[in-house]
Amino acid sequence: MIIGFIGFGKVSGNLADLISSPDIEFVTSTENRSPETIRNIKKSNVEVLDTFREVALKSDILISANSPKNALDAAVKYGKYCKGIYLDLNNVSPDTTFKISEHADDFVDGAIIGKIDSNNPILYLSGPNAEKLLFLDEFIETHIISDRIGDVSKLKLLRSAYTKTLSVLLIESLEIAKDNNLENEFYEILSLTEGDDFKDKSQSRIENTLNSSKRKSEELKEIIEYFDENELTMVKSALKKLNR
Amino acid sequence: MIIGFIGFGKVSGNLADLISSPDIEFVTSTENRSPETIRNIKKSNVEVLDTFREVALKSDILISANSPKNALDAAVKYGKYCKGIYLDLNNVSPDTTFKISEHADDFVDGAIIGKIDSNNPILYLSGPNAEKLLFLDEFIETHIISDRIGDVSKLKLLRSAYTKTLSVLLIESLEIAKDNNLENEFYEILSLTEGDDFKDKSQSRIENTLNSSKRKSEELKEIIEYFDENELTMVKSALKKLNR
Repeated sequence: MIIGFIGFGKVSGNLADLISSPDIEFVTSTENRSPETIRNIKKSNVEVLDTFREVALKSDILISANSPKNALDAAVKYGKYCKGIYLDLNNVSPDTTFKISEHADDFVDGAIIGKIDSNNPILYLSGPNAEKLLFLDEFIETHIISDRIGDVSKLKLLRSAYTKTLSVLLIESLEIAKDNNLENEFYEILSLTEGDDFKDKSQSRIENTLNSSKRKSEELKEIIEYFDENELTMVKSALKKLNR
Repeated sequence: MIIGFIGFGKVSGNLADLISSPDIEFVTSTENRSPETIRNIKKSNVEVLDTFREVALKSDILISANSPKNALDAAVKYGKYCKGIYLDLNNVSPDTTFKISEHADDFVDGAIIGKIDSNNPILYLSGPNAEKLLFLDEFIETHIISDRIGDVSKLKLLRSAYTKTLSVLLIESLEIAKDNNLENEFYEILSLTEGDDFKDKSQSRIENTLNSSKRKSEELKEIIEYFDENELTMVKSALKKLNR
């Protein structure tokens, strides 16, 4: 079996390492890639073809792990050459996922949850062809959510809505705690019910959110636009607070 | 040493059990108590005096564990007879705590966090006399927060602001998840970062909040009124959502 990668960043590189089997070969291309990516490809165990068109033609599974903004373009350019499964792992909205899926016959909606280089990355899959990728569970924990394209993307948005709004709630709670000189006590008392790592986790969430508040607020805006049939009282006020 | 109880409900009864020492005697009174409370007192190892005035006069530590609405009244009536420490464990606002403290010379602001009959109830204390009660740590985990009266009450409010707002965020998130047929998947994906008990904990929080939404919304209103110098964007929208 041949697995091809469009894009060879952290996700592709780590997947090529994790999926280690004598029956599986990997292919990608250095076509129009950055010098850094080309170095990483050369260090890996992945065969290099001249073009991504060839990669698509040769692959039984074609994995697109690009930047979100190139995800649709990659599908438009190479999806049509793909005779096997086209697995999109880009962090894109459900709407973009649907658009991408129109450019490949056997499309699977996917996402890596958790850091790919952590102890327990999990591969989430959805779509009518997802079952065909269940063999990957031997190499990386693989969960099939449903046979509906878009469900993985929706679930990512939903998760992001919850965690980002929670982070803003933490920011607000800490503001009150600090104003009352009860910062440490707040962490301590809540760790009784929220777990021993509550302080560390909360502090990293707060920092993370404040350090990239512009990006987080754009992501919250996308979430609100996507789930526009829901009221989203909490998510909307998280956005309001972030924008101040 | 003599410890007296004003009010003999779950908290007092369990404290009398936990604080088991040959050097400590307990006293309370059946004066104006309900038949159920009188039965519980008779079953316990606590000496019964005729009046709460006598209880106050005799105690080295007088513990008030009543209903919130009787807390101030108890202090007004018996605080003046108390020669030792007056420990208030009622679930009252910081403002009420300050009022109560004016009726006793050596006042300590306290709260039991976690269920009193659970494995790990913790006694939180604040105020200039809190140190004098640190010996209780031998019987029940005891944390002194500060030497400021009101800090325990503020911390309780802060905790309640966080957990109640979080519960409303959970309600909102589950509404979106259900609308997208991703309820179980939402719990599953979040348990990866929020802990294995995320589903059980979230479901019990949601139920709890929906089953007593009127009381929760009153408590949120009190929180907003108390911390009125803070913006409380998130807490306010939790109240808004609860009131719908």
